[in-house]
Amino acid sequence: MSRVLLTGASGFIGRHTLTALAGSGHEVHAVARHPGTAVPGVTWHEADLLAGSEIVAEIEPEILVHLAWYAEHGRFWSSLENLRWVGASLELLREFAASGGRRAVLAGSCAEYEWSSERYSESSPLQPATLYGAAKHGLHVIAATLAEQEGFELAWGRLFLLYGPREAPERFVPSLIVALLRGEPAPMTDGSQVRDFLHSADAGAAFAALADSTVTGAVNVASGNATVLGELARQIAQRIGAEELLRVGAMPSREGEPASLVADVRRLRDEVRWSPSIELDEGLDLVISWWRKRLAAGAGSPDRPPGSPA
Amino acid sequence: MSRVLLTGASGFIGRHTLTALAGSGHEVHAVARHPGTAVPGVTWHEADLLAGSEIVAEIEPEILVHLAWYAEHGRFWSSLENLRWVGASLELLREFAASGGRRAVLAGSCAEYEWSSERYSESSPLQPATLYGAAKHGLHVIAATLAEQEGFELAWGRLFLLYGPREAPERFVPSLIVALLRGEPAPMTDGSQVRDFLHSADAGAAFAALADSTVTGAVNVASGNATVLGELARQIAQRIGAEELLRVGAMPSREGEPASLVADVRRLRDEVRWSPSIELDEGLDLVISWWRKRLAAGAGSPDRPPGSPA
Repeated sequence: MSRVLLTGASGFIGRHTLTALAGSGHEVHAVARHPGTAVPGVTWHEADLLAGSEIVAEIEPEILVHLAWYAEHGRFWSSLENLRWVGASLELLREFAASGGRRAVLAGSCAEYEWSSERYSESSPLQPATLYGAAKHGLHVIAATLAEQEGFELAWGRLFLLYGPREAPERFVPSLIVALLRGEPAPMTDGSQVRDFLHSADAGAAFAALADSTVTGAVNVASGNATVLGELARQIAQRIGAEELLRVGAMPSREGEPASLVADVRRLRDEVRWSPSIELDEGLDLVISWWRKRLAAGAGSPDRPPGSPA
Repeated sequence: MSRVLLTGASGFIGRHTLTALAGSGHEVHAVARHPGTAVPGVTWHEADLLAGSEIVAEIEPEILVHLAWYAEHGRFWSSLENLRWVGASLELLREFAASGGRRAVLAGSCAEYEWSSERYSESSPLQPATLYGAAKHGLHVIAATLAEQEGFELAWGRLFLLYGPREAPERFVPSLIVALLRGEPAPMTDGSQVRDFLHSADAGAAFAALADSTVTGAVNVASGNATVLGELARQIAQRIGAEELLRVGAMPSREGEPASLVADVRRLRDEVRWSPSIELDEGLDLVISWWRKRLAAGAGSPDRPPGSPA
């Protein structure tokens, strides 16, 4: 059992990391701008990490799991807020090093890789095409050297694509589900992109497993499964029973989008010894059911995003 | 003529960049914690960049020359202050991007390279061995992507070794000069290290030239001349007339020190069209003479460093 500080603890991934860490018996200190629901073994701390919070110095955690970041859909790729999150993250690490922390686990991204492969291992070339990716990669360069110098362990979990309840409704999976559940046409690109999808609950659990391991360096946090977007869309439409509403090819592809983003997950599986527990078909049913309830309750319109990003 | 904001303007390099920029007719806004001497065409601004200064947003410079950094001798390689300077630099760049700046020139370092070559070009492998080097490299990764996205020019001047008046007296060149001028033994390592030395006035002028050019990306700021430390020490001792006081080999070499740190300066010479104007023998005479006056005036003891680093 360790004293763990978790940032982004009320977010899309963090809420699941929180329950997994608490479930393993850790003394969990959860940081968020707005405290989440009460969980046994968890102490909530209201803090704005961008405003010079000194929460790490206060708590002196043995393990830091830092998931908080700017994640507004459609904006996070190029937002200048990425720069502020680099600064805030370095501030956390500075306090963590100064207070003698033992192990830090941070969230990286597949956006750090040079998008030219089909499948990415942790040693694939790094050449971010976006400010978000550059901010994460630059932070990792600095954090890794800091950890080596100060003698704490650093694990860097590179997230690929995620899906799950509370995802911003403008994103691919929920936008399809919401349109189809409403009986509206669901336009999409030609759907040829190949992606690696992981359920947010699995992603959260993977970070808890990473925190509990002794693995250091970059680790892809993903399913390792290649899913063609068009196939995924058809699967969703079938499950909802609205295949005739799917409009494949009705939208242009985004410029600069990579053809394939699939992870080599051998480190996660063989070294961290963690594998996903939610299969894609099962996960989609869970998300569809979550949105069904949500829509029945009158929420879920684009101007009322059901989950804040983190 | 442009409106230029210069940070670290009272520092070891910055004071020379300041006069060069003002001499070229720019409207120079100089930032420092403690204002320097009055120079025609220069407006001084007292600001602490680590304390959330909003000086860039206030001045809205067309050109930003950012030289300020933590530079305490013997400590800057591994100080946690490096992390705060990354944050402060990103803050400056964020304001610069938001206020529509045209060109940013920042100070990088030879410590960004993987120390395994004899001579380093800007495309040599990057693999910092120190926190200082990692902080600079990480900042460059982020800054370069930001500049491309926001449409401003970014030049990244990688400094090699420097010497000049006001250097901290514990550093190699001044420590030899001070000891020899005092008639004391001057211990040093075996002196086999090969280094690239540039006079601080030249380094300052190079950054002004970089600011006035349209060159982007990494540019080595150095002399391009390979100097063996033992040879340099003998040259200093000869000029002072105290060769018998030099103790070559009396000190162990620092662990992890690279054998050679010499720059390929073709970009600086052929693209920026700038070359040093102070030859090493002439520069050494200037520095020896500066210390002679300084010692005559009773200053220069190690506990009273004559110049603040920047």
